Amino acid sequence: MGKVYLIGAGPGAADLITVRGARLLAQATIVFHDALVQPEMLAMAPQAKKVAVGKRCSQVSTDQRFINRNLVEAAAKHAVVVRLKGGDPMLFGRAQEEIEALRAAGVDFEVVPGITAALAASAQIGVSLTQRGVSRSVVFATPRVGEGEDVSDWAPAVAHADTAALYMGVGQAAKIASVLQQHGMPPSTPVVIVENASLPSSREVATTLGELAAGREARFEGPALMLFGDVYSRHAAELLGQVGLVVSPRRALSR
Amino acid sequence: MGKVYLIGAGPGAADLITVRGARLLAQATIVFHDALVQPEMLAMAPQAKKVAVGKRCSQVSTDQRFINRNLVEAAAKHAVVVRLKGGDPMLFGRAQEEIEALRAAGVDFEVVPGITAALAASAQIGVSLTQRGVSRSVVFATPRVGEGEDVSDWAPAVAHADTAALYMGVGQAAKIASVLQQHGMPPSTPVVIVENASLPSSREVATTLGELAAGREARFEGPALMLFGDVYSRHAAELLGQVGLVVSPRRALSR
Repeated sequence: MGKVYLIGAGPGAADLITVRGARLLAQATIVFHDALVQPEMLAMAPQAKKVAVGKRCSQVSTDQRFINRNLVEAAAKHAVVVRLKGGDPMLFGRAQEEIEALRAAGVDFEVVPGITAALAASAQIGVSLTQRGVSRSVVFATPRVGEGEDVSDWAPAVAHADTAALYMGVGQAAKIASVLQQHGMPPSTPVVIVENASLPSSREVATTLGELAAGREARFEGPALMLFGDVYSRHAAELLGQVGLVVSPRRALSR
Repeated sequence: MGKVYLIGAGPGAADLITVRGARLLAQATIVFHDALVQPEMLAMAPQAKKVAVGKRCSQVSTDQRFINRNLVEAAAKHAVVVRLKGGDPMLFGRAQEEIEALRAAGVDFEVVPGITAALAASAQIGVSLTQRGVSRSVVFATPRVGEGEDVSDWAPAVAHADTAALYMGVGQAAKIASVLQQHGMPPSTPVVIVENASLPSSREVATTLGELAAGREARFEGPALMLFGDVYSRHAAELLGQVGLVVSPRRALSR
């Protein structure tokens, strides 16, 4: 029996995977990967069979039970099976369902953490999620409801934290902003939206909660993260001062 | 003029730094590092001068202004200056103060994200921070107040999130638990404390918010993270079922 490694691919840039993750990719003979994983990262497993298993926001994705069954079956034939997930497996990665399936089947596994989008976006824009005297609590949340999942109350946690990072919410940005205002978040709250963090195609947009609620939304094609909080006051003002509420030319990536 | 790289060292294990971070360490000729960075990681910069600049919980640490000045001065003499911080620079890493100093001095810089302790701890214990139908919001917070910093209200954000990870709080665990109960978190809330996540010396303790408030605390020597929420129900019960409220023999690290 082989071992299954659930590996966080990180935000997108191929060199933002961990050293451990890269080493395991090089050893793998089969890799099951999310749709969002970049070709440059898959190239780090040159000898492995690659199986795309979906998990892309608002597109048809592979049934979770099919993924689970495939991982268990692959462990019977391969010494090193990699399940490569965008970001970190344990944060909006649906890893638990795969872990339970592996446990139930008695398959050995290990989780290798990855850089989640909020950390990559913060590094890119040069604004820390926590700041002395401004923010000591950061919430990562998603307003997106999965199939068969109850609409739980995500907004109070976001409204009570000093800084918030919302995943998978940009398609319903105006509604999200309205809900947050209803929960007491001031309309003046700075908002920065970062699309494709860490990739050359990355874009940033700055706005405020009030503007966002009023429906002045930008359109995004890649995965985008919404950041809220007073830590973004100056960064948002700088972006807005340059260009108004539009996409900003992002600082050049130094790789 | 050289460039300063603020690099997240990750949780401790040397191979949980990013590929980009490892490559830059190998190029650096000077490395300013936190006290908690492991010797194995510093060995990845064999040719670099190493300067320890403190930042260890409850010990004397180097004055932030001294660190800032050193980074600026080093950039005048070294092409690749690395500032290596435990975890991620942008989450409880005090990176903003160094970024502002570098900006003010006109020194080029880049932030390279790192694996934060909560993600490493989650990978180690095999419990996802978010879970379908159980948790879609996760707060990362610290009750620890820095020098000259106001005691802001960290508890409501923690009490309102589905899952919480508290950094730098284990030394005042009973008080923290009492405050969270006052904010409405049920005494039955499962708690898992993970010390030295990702290292061979790592330990786990399971308890409940009520037990923690009653002062039944374990003592920790390394950095420890407190995890709260219903996602830990089964894991905590398994740990408690084995051994009661004591340190559990951690699952062997597979490296």
